[in-house]
Amino acid sequence: MSKPDNNIFPIHDKLLDRRSKEQLLQQRSKVLWFTGLSGSGKSTIANEVERVLHQMGHLTMLLDGDNVRAGINNNLGFSEEDRKENIRRIAEVAKLLMQGGVVTICCFVSPSEELRQLAKDIIGKDDFIEIYVNTPVEVCEQRDVKGLYAKARRGEIKDFTGVNAPFEEPVNADIVLQSGIMSIDGCVKLVLENVMPKIGYVKTEKKDDFFVI
Amino acid sequence: MSKPDNNIFPIHDKLLDRRSKEQLLQQRSKVLWFTGLSGSGKSTIANEVERVLHQMGHLTMLLDGDNVRAGINNNLGFSEEDRKENIRRIAEVAKLLMQGGVVTICCFVSPSEELRQLAKDIIGKDDFIEIYVNTPVEVCEQRDVKGLYAKARRGEIKDFTGVNAPFEEPVNADIVLQSGIMSIDGCVKLVLENVMPKIGYVKTEKKDDFFVI
Repeated sequence: MSKPDNNIFPIHDKLLDRRSKEQLLQQRSKVLWFTGLSGSGKSTIANEVERVLHQMGHLTMLLDGDNVRAGINNNLGFSEEDRKENIRRIAEVAKLLMQGGVVTICCFVSPSEELRQLAKDIIGKDDFIEIYVNTPVEVCEQRDVKGLYAKARRGEIKDFTGVNAPFEEPVNADIVLQSGIMSIDGCVKLVLENVMPKIGYVKTEKKDDFFVI
Repeated sequence: MSKPDNNIFPIHDKLLDRRSKEQLLQQRSKVLWFTGLSGSGKSTIANEVERVLHQMGHLTMLLDGDNVRAGINNNLGFSEEDRKENIRRIAEVAKLLMQGGVVTICCFVSPSEELRQLAKDIIGKDDFIEIYVNTPVEVCEQRDVKGLYAKARRGEIKDFTGVNAPFEEPVNADIVLQSGIMSIDGCVKLVLENVMPKIGYVKTEKKDDFFVI
């Protein structure tokens, strides 16, 4: 045990920053934000993107309704105020993860430009990759994996996006997936082609520095 | 582009779970929860623990007042209800990180057994390592790095733990650091000796399996 220092509180030279984490993980961290109707294929595509990135050795984390509404946002409902707070907290968590070096994948309907802009403002435009899963509502309703469209049509769900609440088409999406006419594999490929150069890196001669490929 | 599948929504064999992330990172994820008075040395010790773990190749993330109150919890005050919600959200974020394979370090006064138990319940007792930084209030007040004790004594801060609000001694701490009489280095060493066996792993002959050392 070394000498006690009751009154002296050392200031650390340098706390660990995002770059230290990125270097450890040998990746650049970004947030992939999937937006689109319920049943559009967001989660299916995002899960497959995550699986491929993981197989390539990237550390990823996926936030969706399942892990967020059951945890950090389990005290939020679906009022306009709560929907905004839902997205705000998700974006803050995504930002924390990104600052920790993690490639973070978010899957949320986020039906308005205001909500998507809120997320983008929190995360920062340079790190926010907006991916619009553009599937016609008729296709989503026909799939109706969770039976939510049927419920909404019967009036059992109020303000259900695509049935009795609007979905504003994203005007600033970085990637648009026409998932009604493209295969899942095609969508995944398109996302990866766009994302890979943004999260990869090449170590340079100069110590502790790296550039995006 | 492969054949479109408008109506078929594939179910994935297996989503990425915590173990996949732990294997990628070659570590077991845990939550290190530092509790103690303001000025007790929580952040100093925790930052140093993080730095050492990072140098050893572990992926860590540190949550403290600075990054949490400025972000995810920027709409919370210091009422009893808000303090509880503060800890609840932090614990949920820590759980998410842990499920993503990250060794997560939390530094919060968390002055009551109820608050610490809340965090433990959310994170799960097997993954929650409670570290009590036990520094006498006189030492903390003498340090008063942030000038908060002086403010509290002048009545400018209400319900300041250690001055005009109680700190309940943890009864279930996994590690107790007598930081008033131990050096910072000694505290860091004690934490690492306890934590290292819990986050390390040895790969076995059997593919995709590993055990704690």
